[in-house]
Amino acid sequence: MRHYQPTEPEIHILGRTRTGNPLPLFWTASGLEFLTDGGELWFELESDYESMEEWVRIEVDGFCLQRLIVPKGRSRLCAFRGFPAGTMRRVRLLKEVQPMREDEKRCLLVHGLDCDGKLYPIPDGACRIEFVGDSLSAGVGLAGAPCLVGAGPAVYGLDGNYALLTAEHFKADFRILAQCGWGAHCSCYNDFIQIMPRYYEQICGVLTGDHNRELGAFERNDFSAWQPDLVVVNLGSNDGFAVDRPAWVDPQDGSSHRMVSRPCGGLEEQSALRFEASVKDFLRKLRRLNPDAYLLWVYGMCEHRMAPYLETAVREYREESGDEKADFLLLPATNPLWVGSENHPGKKEHALAAEVLIDRAEGILKRKMGKG
Amino acid sequence: MRHYQPTEPEIHILGRTRTGNPLPLFWTASGLEFLTDGGELWFELESDYESMEEWVRIEVDGFCLQRLIVPKGRSRLCAFRGFPAGTMRRVRLLKEVQPMREDEKRCLLVHGLDCDGKLYPIPDGACRIEFVGDSLSAGVGLAGAPCLVGAGPAVYGLDGNYALLTAEHFKADFRILAQCGWGAHCSCYNDFIQIMPRYYEQICGVLTGDHNRELGAFERNDFSAWQPDLVVVNLGSNDGFAVDRPAWVDPQDGSSHRMVSRPCGGLEEQSALRFEASVKDFLRKLRRLNPDAYLLWVYGMCEHRMAPYLETAVREYREESGDEKADFLLLPATNPLWVGSENHPGKKEHALAAEVLIDRAEGILKRKMGKG
Amino acid sequence: MRHYQPTEPEIHILGRTRTGNPLPLFWTASGLEFLTDGGELWFELESDYESMEEWVRIEVDGFCLQRLIVPKGRSRLCAFRGFPAGTMRRVRLLKEVQPMREDEKRCLLVHGLDCDGKLYPIPDGACRIEFVGDSLSAGVGLAGAPCLVGAGPAVYGLDGNYALLTAEHFKADFRILAQCGWGAHCSCYNDFIQIMPRYYEQICGVLTGDHNRELGAFERNDFSAWQPDLVVVNLGSNDGFAVDRPAWVDPQDGSSHRMVSRPCGGLEEQSALRFEASVKDFLRKLRRLNPDAYLLWVYGMCEHRMAPYLETAVREYREESGDEKADFLLLPATNPLWVGSENHPGKKEHALAAEVLIDRAEGILKRKMGKG
Amino acid sequence: MRHYQPTEPEIHILGRTRTGNPLPLFWTASGLEFLTDGGELWFELESDYESMEEWVRIEVDGFCLQRLIVPKGRSRLCAFRGFPAGTMRRVRLLKEVQPMREDEKRCLLVHGLDCDGKLYPIPDGACRIEFVGDSLSAGVGLAGAPCLVGAGPAVYGLDGNYALLTAEHFKADFRILAQCGWGAHCSCYNDFIQIMPRYYEQICGVLTGDHNRELGAFERNDFSAWQPDLVVVNLGSNDGFAVDRPAWVDPQDGSSHRMVSRPCGGLEEQSALRFEASVKDFLRKLRRLNPDAYLLWVYGMCEHRMAPYLETAVREYREESGDEKADFLLLPATNPLWVGSENHPGKKEHALAAEVLIDRAEGILKRKMGKG
Repeated sequence: MRHYQPTEPEIHILGRTRTGNPLPLFWTASGLEFLTDGGELWFELESDYESMEEWVRIEVDGFCLQRLIVPKGRSRLCAFRGFPAGTMRRVRLLKEVQPMREDEKRCLLVHGLDCDGKLYPIPDGACRIEFVGDSLSAGVGLAGAPCLVGAGPAVYGLDGNYALLTAEHFKADFRILAQCGWGAHCSCYNDFIQIMPRYYEQICGVLTGDHNRELGAFERNDFSAWQPDLVVVNLGSNDGFAVDRPAWVDPQDGSSHRMVSRPCGGLEEQSALRFEASVKDFLRKLRRLNPDAYLLWVYGMCEHRMAPYLETAVREYREESGDEKADFLLLPATNPLWVGSENHPGKKEHALAAEVLIDRAEGILKRKMGKG
Repeated sequence: MRHYQPTEPEIHILGRTRTGNPLPLFWTASGLEFLTDGGELWFELESDYESMEEWVRIEVDGFCLQRLIVPKGRSRLCAFRGFPAGTMRRVRLLKEVQPMREDEKRCLLVHGLDCDGKLYPIPDGACRIEFVGDSLSAGVGLAGAPCLVGAGPAVYGLDGNYALLTAEHFKADFRILAQCGWGAHCSCYNDFIQIMPRYYEQICGVLTGDHNRELGAFERNDFSAWQPDLVVVNLGSNDGFAVDRPAWVDPQDGSSHRMVSRPCGGLEEQSALRFEASVKDFLRKLRRLNPDAYLLWVYGMCEHRMAPYLETAVREYREESGDEKADFLLLPATNPLWVGSENHPGKKEHALAAEVLIDRAEGILKRKMGKG
Repeated sequence: MRHYQPTEPEIHILGRTRTGNPLPLFWTASGLEFLTDGGELWFELESDYESMEEWVRIEVDGFCLQRLIVPKGRSRLCAFRGFPAGTMRRVRLLKEVQPMREDEKRCLLVHGLDCDGKLYPIPDGACRIEFVGDSLSAGVGLAGAPCLVGAGPAVYGLDGNYALLTAEHFKADFRILAQCGWGAHCSCYNDFIQIMPRYYEQICGVLTGDHNRELGAFERNDFSAWQPDLVVVNLGSNDGFAVDRPAWVDPQDGSSHRMVSRPCGGLEEQSALRFEASVKDFLRKLRRLNPDAYLLWVYGMCEHRMAPYLETAVREYREESGDEKADFLLLPATNPLWVGSENHPGKKEHALAAEVLIDRAEGILKRKMGKG
Repeated sequence: MRHYQPTEPEIHILGRTRTGNPLPLFWTASGLEFLTDGGELWFELESDYESMEEWVRIEVDGFCLQRLIVPKGRSRLCAFRGFPAGTMRRVRLLKEVQPMREDEKRCLLVHGLDCDGKLYPIPDGACRIEFVGDSLSAGVGLAGAPCLVGAGPAVYGLDGNYALLTAEHFKADFRILAQCGWGAHCSCYNDFIQIMPRYYEQICGVLTGDHNRELGAFERNDFSAWQPDLVVVNLGSNDGFAVDRPAWVDPQDGSSHRMVSRPCGGLEEQSALRFEASVKDFLRKLRRLNPDAYLLWVYGMCEHRMAPYLETAVREYREESGDEKADFLLLPATNPLWVGSENHPGKKEHALAAEVLIDRAEGILKRKMGKG
């Protein structure tokens, strides 16, 4: 058995992070991927938390062999053993759950791995896709029975997540930046803090606390190191849900903010305009940081109330900027029969959303990859 | 072989019509149903048209054996022959296509049938469901390849229609009143003529012309003779599409009418309010004419832009009337991969809509049928 | 409207027949195929029968718009009308039902078609596949409810037939030669007459009678005119079922013949050897008449009792002849839940069989078509 | 947090074992099941092995939240934490992998569990089903990608296993006794040792070694404590595969044994008769030990070569014994497209087999449960 550090060049790092040893895993679906001809493999992990435990999955050749809670402290986790050596296998360790702002102690670090074979690099992805989203991209609802509600990290799952299905279809290298409850203009609680555009330039700015600072979470992301061909923004659902929640009072200046709907239905005009302005702002930021990427704003897996405003915002962005590499795609809304855990869309909804997204992305990426 | 008239008591008449000999078939899925132990059966039909031919289907024990264009004039149509006599079979002749206002010559009449066996009545349906809708309920898109567009009656199909799937699930007797392009407040052309509420009290008032008058199309429907347990109203899609079309000028007074959307997205308030008033009016009319029926307004198979206004209207109707037997159900919207002919939702969309509708109707009808 | 004869060069003839005017259609899925830019199309047909009526289907762009019984005598059948002219459409008229030996009067002739547009040839098929089989290839069971049994031609259907699914997958030109109840060595009644190898060299030698003779059914097939890339032989099921039926007495010499099983299970050795000899004989005949074709003997859609003997026979044929372009493929057996009409496998079984066959044929045809 | 012993009356023990503390888990799908209103739960396990590690799964309300390798030695395994307390949940800990004869050190013991809530008993199963089988019932092939071969315990999975699907459908309490490679008359290696009938009367007699003896594996099973309503025997596949393997030499007397096929196909008669005798013997043993159970011999998930002999054997058993509560059911054979890991049938095959088995068992169990 030989020990390998997470910095070995053969190891592909998934997800935004600061490489090093130990390797911190922040985002959903971040992790390690490599080929090996070994017959036995162990991961050396470290984890801590106060309220929100960490979960991982181990995939071999695309099949999830294990999904489990990571023990507190340092632990050695047997990925597999007793496999016939000499056969090349593709191994992936993935973090199942999103960063959790409410638990500053929480962390997941990879110290390395032990293997009785050699490691080999995986082939380069055919393209790169970045997903920026909320609970839908974080896979809330994909784990647990429909009656499992309010259950913390356990309801987060990668199995069947539309983002992974899409990436897999295109054999794409991919990253997910997603936070449950967050929005483009405001969160589902109407606040202006828990919004993805605010932290997009940092490695994982959605977190807080000194430990995460030490791990590099608040550093500026190195955009030059990883430029996506396609950015899929799946935000807006929580901005819409905010209508049903009380106003948020800004602790800084005591001002009160809320998305408001008209009695006759639909958003009140000022709410719509503010939302649309935020969407356009984020598109401009994404364009600045990802100059060659196609920007596809998708929405609709829960319901479609924000569709008219997103369509308007994206159309106006295109017109105002002259940027033709940006568009809107309405995803099919889930239905009562497809609900997973945590009252979120389940696997059937993710599968259908992926089908529709793949169909749309096919043309975009073909052009990108010079095949069109 | 014995001749049977369409007035035989063993024959169940499907759809709103004036019974008699010949029997006129006006609406989608209207027709005849009965049991027989014969081995050979012929229908005697009469049809005429100028531009819009008639299509029928013949089902035996629920399987569609034939679907075809009905020849002009009087014709004898062999439903089946050479079947082993003495086995009881359930036979259904159904009109595939909606009434066509634009072709006053058009008609489909049943003069009777010839059979070498006896006829027997089908068991009573477990309940009664009435569907009032537009092209979605008329099955536009369910026949023909996706590239078949602008093709007249050929694109109408009963195979996979959500209304039939729902009725079949509940073993319900059912009726469909549906007109492509029509709405609740206005049609997709913004006019106030082509709306279903306007003609709901007549047998088939959506038609015009003397021949249809003679056939009884404009007579008042006998509501006492057939009271539904559930009325499914699937209207609103065309009211929404009207936004994208020019205004309609009322030929009576030269006034101009149009559904209008705000620049920021969503309906302009006056359009929303007028639409909602029409929805509530229709609910009141339905309640008056169907005092014991549950009124379920469904919407959404194409897209969801009218959902907020329909929700508002149905909620207000409930509050204002105190009528608790009325509700709104959002159906899943189709997606680009599920398109059938005529740019309409195809079979997968109808199947999913039916699943969701059945799930909701289960509770309603269980109560109705005294099982709840 | 212009009249076109069935001999127009733009019209592709499907199925073995003698071309001319009128054009006789003998086999399952024989018919006409062409492109047209017309908006209205009528077929001129002629049919007769004593006991077994003829059925056809009309497909436009791959969608079956009509399926119906062909009236006795000469008739004009409207394929479609009112379609927007100027759009190119692919039209196919197909015979739904197999040749029927028991009804010598029976025939289906195409006298031509009337169309308001031009005809254009369809692109050449990517390859050619010939299916030689029994009721499974003839599509018995694919039409009618499961309770429809003993019902003559009505139970034959092309919708979902594994042969058509396979041909469609490969965009292949295809022919089906199939007879319900027939076998490779003997029929399900143990006779040596109703076997496909006996008539393989004729256009449609399975028929009898003077009228069929006049139509050319007994003429030698012109093998040079249409050489398949792949011959799929789906025979053996009836040879196996013969075990459960009484012996057949040869009227010529009074000898008695029967497939026999051992008390302990499996075929008695002499029966197995005779069956295997017939299989090898047929493979040799097929090779002689189709020198470059791959010969794939498939079996198993009903059950698998003959699998060991077919495997043996095909293996021995390969060894004895040195012919490496012949193989055996076991198809998945149906199950009680997948039964269609006439106690035959239904659509799910055909779909799965097609999947397995396509998977196997992929390699064969890729090589054939020079892509491998 | 309170500690609970595995002997608590609220805990339902799944699978044949000797109850006590610690509780040994021998068979596939053996484990613990109970209800709890707690929000946090830990299992205390102990495991050892030399070559074949133990795997478990943890299900909450029917959803598998974790599947993992059990660490060597004693360990505390967090099933879940942070769930809202006060909600009743159904928890199940299941052993994923079969007993492994080749590793005498191997064991999996449950020492108890810690929970912050109370435990409650699950409702009684609607009926009891016992599965006696080989790798198919042990779920070989259901875990791991198709390229995972020769990989020891990792390829065993309960997710999608036909036995669990069937039990779940009937809400049945169930047990699985299964060993990969074993048969009814001989194993796939032609030996007479690795056959399920030989050890059926013991708790888990298929194991060896002193440690297993101490754990009670070789004790006589208490048949009076758990009488099944239905015994599903899924054996015969390996007896059939033995044909392709060399003879086995009995170390006791040097005699040589082998299943042999005829050159023309099918089993040689003596092999068939010996196999059939063993099948009938086992049926007699099962009847003696389970006097009221229905005995359903199923077979065919891999292929059907033994079907004629099993049909014969079961029919003869019925005739000779007069026992009418025994029958044979042919399951659909898998196909090349449905292969899972270890060259075994995958999830689609298990799902279809379960459908067919459920359809057949419906009638049997309805009668059993007094509903028929």
